[in-house]
Amino acid sequence: MLGTVLYGPGDIRCEAVAEPEIVEATDAIIKLSASCICGSDLWPYRGLQPVDAPMHMGHEYCGVVVEVGRAVRTVKPGQFVVGSFCISDNTCPHCRFGFQSSCEQREFMSRAQAPVLRVPLADGTLVATSAMPSDDLIPSLLAASDVLGTGWYAADAARVQPGSTAVVVGDGAVGLMGVLAARHMGAERVIAMSRHKTRQDLALEFGATHIVSERGDEGVARVKELTDGVGADSVLECVGTQESMTQAMNCARPGGSIGFVGVPHGVQIDGQGLFFAQKSLLGGPAPVRRFLPDLIDLVLNRTINPGRVFDLALPLTDVAEGYRAMDERRAIKTLLHV
Amino acid sequence: MLGTVLYGPGDIRCEAVAEPEIVEATDAIIKLSASCICGSDLWPYRGLQPVDAPMHMGHEYCGVVVEVGRAVRTVKPGQFVVGSFCISDNTCPHCRFGFQSSCEQREFMSRAQAPVLRVPLADGTLVATSAMPSDDLIPSLLAASDVLGTGWYAADAARVQPGSTAVVVGDGAVGLMGVLAARHMGAERVIAMSRHKTRQDLALEFGATHIVSERGDEGVARVKELTDGVGADSVLECVGTQESMTQAMNCARPGGSIGFVGVPHGVQIDGQGLFFAQKSLLGGPAPVRRFLPDLIDLVLNRTINPGRVFDLALPLTDVAEGYRAMDERRAIKTLLHV
Repeated sequence: MLGTVLYGPGDIRCEAVAEPEIVEATDAIIKLSASCICGSDLWPYRGLQPVDAPMHMGHEYCGVVVEVGRAVRTVKPGQFVVGSFCISDNTCPHCRFGFQSSCEQREFMSRAQAPVLRVPLADGTLVATSAMPSDDLIPSLLAASDVLGTGWYAADAARVQPGSTAVVVGDGAVGLMGVLAARHMGAERVIAMSRHKTRQDLALEFGATHIVSERGDEGVARVKELTDGVGADSVLECVGTQESMTQAMNCARPGGSIGFVGVPHGVQIDGQGLFFAQKSLLGGPAPVRRFLPDLIDLVLNRTINPGRVFDLALPLTDVAEGYRAMDERRAIKTLLHV
Repeated sequence: MLGTVLYGPGDIRCEAVAEPEIVEATDAIIKLSASCICGSDLWPYRGLQPVDAPMHMGHEYCGVVVEVGRAVRTVKPGQFVVGSFCISDNTCPHCRFGFQSSCEQREFMSRAQAPVLRVPLADGTLVATSAMPSDDLIPSLLAASDVLGTGWYAADAARVQPGSTAVVVGDGAVGLMGVLAARHMGAERVIAMSRHKTRQDLALEFGATHIVSERGDEGVARVKELTDGVGADSVLECVGTQESMTQAMNCARPGGSIGFVGVPHGVQIDGQGLFFAQKSLLGGPAPVRRFLPDLIDLVLNRTINPGRVFDLALPLTDVAEGYRAMDERRAIKTLLHV
């Protein structure tokens, strides 16, 4: 079959790869309905994360189970499933506390930019739907696998409450999902920080009540203006740079919370600065599995439409154009037909 | 009158200082029932914080109001009051959110190692008792002003829940108050990290269920053993060094919370490390004012006895011995008779 492999910065290829097979008794093999490119795939693509050996790419997936290992109990061939980008057993203490992305058996999914995928720890990782979903819901179900779940975690970690004010730093796909999540959790004001018209429009569609196009200190000053000088209750940091983290910290009010889901690259936090700023920080790889059942329901009953975040769809063979379009910010997020 | 002044590392003096007077209409003058030395006073005493000019010391206080400015409404001469080491108006947005230590008008108290004290923003800062407390409760009421309130905030910021496991890093006075707070908030297991017999004994008296005398990686390993390899739900960081912060972070489980109240000195936090550790951080100068009414009640009805933390009492004129005893860890905390 075909799959995508990153050979080095800017060098992503679609080429023949081995078809996956059951390895462990707890595995499932699924035929993917679609795959996609994640903003985090751009870190190694841009050379900002080392590529020591060819990397099989892709960690977002949904599709139909074709085979399960003999120990698998909760999913069976023919079922439609969505799984998290973090493999988890969903039974260890960390999973039971709702932090499946720190599962004692955690693995990070890869090789999902392909038509067929092996999913380890299928019972803990996959959530099956009761019926086969309509085709038009596939992009939204695919989004639940990571980008939506990650935006949701940003809002959860930032402790968004009904009636509160939330700021979203970053207008990439995760940030836009963060807007959707914050609004769904009842934030009265959702301030999206974005300079790009198409992203601003999508943020508004997802429930943003205000757009701030300034960045850095100017952006912080605008947020302060909008909050009567107080700052936001919750800030969703969806980028992962020192600049975006500083911006996020400065947008929050004392006692406010920052949920950070952009993988930090070169970010240092000064302890004394954090102390006197008196702001709460929680981040990490999103425990998507915690949210998946609810997110799937919200998609199936058409309460949310996160699939709108895909503004480019390409066949797997054109994956290189998909990466380029995202790298050049011509596309927010690329869906791959596998 | 006499007061204490720090001239440089190790050079603390008791000398004649000006008696305070009403300056602003919102001030109160109180005659102190007692004062004390704080662990944070040791930072400049030890030369770990610059002393550019002679510093008037002391920020913990309780006593009887002798005079109020014309704008003061909630306290009056003759009342016994306890105040926070952070001056706050208790009306600004940050105060209303319960973060009075980030009040828009915040000032840090000083000059409280003296018999008479000026308290700015008296209405927002002071809490009066309904009657004059017995003399034997003075140490506990004095403790509420900072050390108890700070330990309380450490437990609050570490989100201690009934039935949970809490670890306290640091066996100074604040750490011991953190033990008391965590236990009072319902933690089922309170693990005090302490190597000193007298402090271990006091930790046990305050409700610690386990003592871990190892530090660093060995201490973390012991905490992991005691928690079946999981880590603690809540960790109270009550020191403020890189070593203690690292120890605190490593003792928490993923998704667990660290409340840090030791003023960080030279502490740097790596963003990516914090991300993958997936632990929640909140610290800062304690919003003691939020807790004061409850803490005063708990002391007056003799539910808690935080005054036990004072294991040395000296006249103000012997303040230098009080600092020395704490610096050399011969005393946990020194009460000063003013």
